[in-house]
Amino acid sequence: MSEETRQRIIEAGAELIHKQGFNNTGLKDILRAADVPKGSFYFYFDNKEAFGLEVLEYYRHRFKQVFDDILRDDSRPALDRLRDFFSAFQTYFESHNYSRGCPVGNLAQEMSDLSGPFREKLQEVLEGLTTAHVYILTEAQKSGEVPTDLAIRDTAIFMVEACHGAIIRMKVTKSAEPLEIFYKFIFEKVLR
Amino acid sequence: MSEETRQRIIEAGAELIHKQGFNNTGLKDILRAADVPKGSFYFYFDNKEAFGLEVLEYYRHRFKQVFDDILRDDSRPALDRLRDFFSAFQTYFESHNYSRGCPVGNLAQEMSDLSGPFREKLQEVLEGLTTAHVYILTEAQKSGEVPTDLAIRDTAIFMVEACHGAIIRMKVTKSAEPLEIFYKFIFEKVLR
Repeated sequence: MSEETRQRIIEAGAELIHKQGFNNTGLKDILRAADVPKGSFYFYFDNKEAFGLEVLEYYRHRFKQVFDDILRDDSRPALDRLRDFFSAFQTYFESHNYSRGCPVGNLAQEMSDLSGPFREKLQEVLEGLTTAHVYILTEAQKSGEVPTDLAIRDTAIFMVEACHGAIIRMKVTKSAEPLEIFYKFIFEKVLR
Repeated sequence: MSEETRQRIIEAGAELIHKQGFNNTGLKDILRAADVPKGSFYFYFDNKEAFGLEVLEYYRHRFKQVFDDILRDDSRPALDRLRDFFSAFQTYFESHNYSRGCPVGNLAQEMSDLSGPFREKLQEVLEGLTTAHVYILTEAQKSGEVPTDLAIRDTAIFMVEACHGAIIRMKVTKSAEPLEIFYKFIFEKVLR
């Protein structure tokens, strides 16, 4: 039993859940992907729901890394950083043939009505995504790249969710078009 | 065996799938809710996937009724009709404590990577939602309520998906706030 094994189970589960959903991923699938026996899973996690919350924390952490790498690089104009941030996600989706979608948006859709603990954790993670956007919009406002009267928090919420919606359609059309339309409206209308 | 029984199974399944997802709804749940034996289900539907496609067609039909009732009422200004259309959905969500979400957006998120036939049907249904928005935006453009240079189809796609995203966050926060932010940005920024 080790922290490494625990992490391997989380990462294997995170990949499966991202690809096929939480309810659609059986414990057996996770055990097989992580190559651990059932007893090992229950040594680290009380049940599948508790495991799912750890997976969500893992997604949050991964997102924060991208956020720190790209959005906090203050050597570049804020809106350029925001464009790079979107591009990083588009590159990821392209490499997966526009499948999978946003792991957080997926679980928000699937789990928020089914589990109180999931909903609470999802609220925290969505708040994190929002805070990242508030950060970059505040930077953009300071440097005069967006209007001084832009309502930062509402804009951040609108952007995060319009992006979640665009990603849903991307999964259906299997094309970049919905993401491109999203970028266009954000930069040409919403941030003007 | 009757058309009425078939319809009862579809409606019972549509309600359950809307509430708890497709993979999370077992055949037993559907049989119990519709009060029919398993043989009756298989008389009407080849398998659960084929049934899911009929449920999606049912959602499409229900949406089209709201569309015809509200958006096609040409006695009123186009953007007023659009506001009423959004209000109708908000009232629905409010009455369900901001749970459930959009049945089409839910299945688009859950099923488009898991089933080719679902993805094809979802593409058709999303196209229908888009066409409804194209219709009302074209009306609004004719009457000078939106700018003449507004790119109608892209705007329609952006609106449908920004709405799907707002609905996801609504399910997490269990509040109208994400919908209200969506309306504000659509009317104050996107349609200007």
